[in-house]
Amino acid sequence: MALYVQKFGGSSVADAECMQRVAQRVYDTQQAGHRVVVVLSAMGKTTDNLINLSKQVNPQPDEREMDMLLATGEQVSVAILAMALHAMGAEAVSMTGPQAGIATDSAHTKAKIMGINPERVIENLDKGRIVIVCGFQGLAPSMDVATLGRGGSDTTAVALAAALKADRCQIFTDVDGVYTADPRTVSEARKLPVIAYDEMLELASLGAKVLQSRSVEFAKKYGVELEVLTSFDRIPGTIVKEEVDDMEQIVVRGVAADKNQAKVTIQRVPDQPGVAARLFQELAAANVNVDMIVQNVSEHGITDISFTVPRDEVNRTRSTVDKLLESLGAAGATYDVDIAKISIVGVGMRSHSGVAYRMFEALSNNKINVEMISTSEIKISVVIRSAYADQAVQVLHKAFELDQANA
Amino acid sequence: MALYVQKFGGSSVADAECMQRVAQRVYDTQQAGHRVVVVLSAMGKTTDNLINLSKQVNPQPDEREMDMLLATGEQVSVAILAMALHAMGAEAVSMTGPQAGIATDSAHTKAKIMGINPERVIENLDKGRIVIVCGFQGLAPSMDVATLGRGGSDTTAVALAAALKADRCQIFTDVDGVYTADPRTVSEARKLPVIAYDEMLELASLGAKVLQSRSVEFAKKYGVELEVLTSFDRIPGTIVKEEVDDMEQIVVRGVAADKNQAKVTIQRVPDQPGVAARLFQELAAANVNVDMIVQNVSEHGITDISFTVPRDEVNRTRSTVDKLLESLGAAGATYDVDIAKISIVGVGMRSHSGVAYRMFEALSNNKINVEMISTSEIKISVVIRSAYADQAVQVLHKAFELDQANA
Repeated sequence: MALYVQKFGGSSVADAECMQRVAQRVYDTQQAGHRVVVVLSAMGKTTDNLINLSKQVNPQPDEREMDMLLATGEQVSVAILAMALHAMGAEAVSMTGPQAGIATDSAHTKAKIMGINPERVIENLDKGRIVIVCGFQGLAPSMDVATLGRGGSDTTAVALAAALKADRCQIFTDVDGVYTADPRTVSEARKLPVIAYDEMLELASLGAKVLQSRSVEFAKKYGVELEVLTSFDRIPGTIVKEEVDDMEQIVVRGVAADKNQAKVTIQRVPDQPGVAARLFQELAAANVNVDMIVQNVSEHGITDISFTVPRDEVNRTRSTVDKLLESLGAAGATYDVDIAKISIVGVGMRSHSGVAYRMFEALSNNKINVEMISTSEIKISVVIRSAYADQAVQVLHKAFELDQANA
Repeated sequence: MALYVQKFGGSSVADAECMQRVAQRVYDTQQAGHRVVVVLSAMGKTTDNLINLSKQVNPQPDEREMDMLLATGEQVSVAILAMALHAMGAEAVSMTGPQAGIATDSAHTKAKIMGINPERVIENLDKGRIVIVCGFQGLAPSMDVATLGRGGSDTTAVALAAALKADRCQIFTDVDGVYTADPRTVSEARKLPVIAYDEMLELASLGAKVLQSRSVEFAKKYGVELEVLTSFDRIPGTIVKEEVDDMEQIVVRGVAADKNQAKVTIQRVPDQPGVAARLFQELAAANVNVDMIVQNVSEHGITDISFTVPRDEVNRTRSTVDKLLESLGAAGATYDVDIAKISIVGVGMRSHSGVAYRMFEALSNNKINVEMISTSEIKISVVIRSAYADQAVQVLHKAFELDQANA
């Protein structure tokens, strides 16, 4: 008898029919002899509709009241699923985040989970009940409900799985797992049976929108085994877990493209201590998320600094940079939105050499020019022209034999 | 500086625009120098929509889960009103029933308020805030939210007013007060500036759907002064309060017609002890709400028993009565749905004699035959043919000079 935490997102619980499908799946898990805790998001467009309603009375609603409002979405979901389970003859009980013992900090609309006291959940599991918990919310120290920010239901599920020492946390979504590459770009893309936390984290930050980074970090921290799978089909998904030795046999786990980046180049900056620090300090103050940073080899004390930012932060970047140019002593700045960031990820890179070389060679053989390079222990990212993004992913997928089952 | 509890029903908070109108009204009350606690129902058709959703997954939803579901309706309302007030520059905070300290019993979907600890409400009032509380809900001993049943928001308002020792509890609705008769029937009907609790209770039970009986009983018990008024216009409503001496100057406060009754007659029953007891015990067991009961004068040990029941309980009554007829020794039973119950109500009846006579004479002068009579200390009800219901109300309104301002 295992303990499963099963999380279903908004599209999995969009209407009454979806609820019945979810109920059947949950009930089947219990009937197979397991204990089940379910975490739900709000139904379909509920959260968006509530936000729209709030904007009609106040363009900048108070965050504490926003949480009061949005927390109702999940509360509707859990009650409806409990009713659907009852109709099947199952024993089930719904709980709000506060009732499930989820305590958060005071940062309304973007709260962090501070701790979980799962006493009431365990008590009900011990009575043979399926326990259904509102995702995305908890109780702030003020005794008000606080939400974890959008997508936070994954985090609720992982945190509950950690607190309950669950055997597995299953995240049901509208994709059926994590792939070696986006199947819309690479027809040979394969679903990965297993992936390490760190690989998933790198892929999540690269725009593979399967799991929220925060929930993967949480899972890694507490050693919760995750499974990503679809609620629309009964097939195994991808398991995200602790890195084990034989995972390193595979050099590259996946290839990802991020087409929402822009490249900024500050031209001819004096190569002096403090210049870069000043630049990136001001950008951080302006809430710009800088990703890759490359400084070219200095020539006669003058250098170029290039970095990438999310495309929708280019305007904010420009207004910050333009004000700084003179005081930095720079010649000017260029803003290039026609780029893409292509990355290969794999824990095997730690023990395999020559990976970067194989990547650059594959791209070069296909006449794809590399403009920036950035590496971490388990990831290599390059910036190229956006027009070549799909081709680059295909080329790398093939070069690292990701279409092979044992790759 | 007075303390007002202001309650707004579903039609007063149907959409964002209504919310803004309510916010303005509430804010004006505070700006006039008063402290304000607001109690809200769910917006427009929200509760009905949630019930419909539940029926799609379970025809007989669990009551604890039903409360989990329905409690969200009021929670949306209070958050939206708080936001609307903030947009006007007001200080305001929303609270669920449990947060406002409202404790109920365990009877989910029809809970009773057991007590209120208004500490948090007072704390926020003391900070100069408008406090907005979810109507219709509280915290059950199990630490689950429980609802008071439909229309229970009035009760929440009155109970809060009692706990806070408020100066007045204003119930905003879609009618602008309590009238001497239904204005659709009697064009001369006048809005009453004031009415006694007991009169209001009799009128409420007679089908004048202005206030829930339960909330009036509560108001009477705790001496809370109520005002019924419209949220769509800024005119005074009707004050419902403790009976005072000069109220007795007026013999009849109002005339009401109840057209949803049916008359049942059990024919030729042996006039023996226990027969009536047995009959009404069985009807109570079948959940039939018997109203008026009349037993004719016994002749040769045989009698007829007549009583009235709500028209939609006639079938349930029939199946209960038909099974009993033989064992009661009765000859048969008749069921008559073409009746109406006409009542006159007034605390002045206590000190004035001849009221019944004046009523019967007025009806008789207009050839309206009286079939049943029932009296209480402050009410006289008669059953007549339903075809004459409107005419009877008009005749009595005139006979007791209810069109006169000082009546």
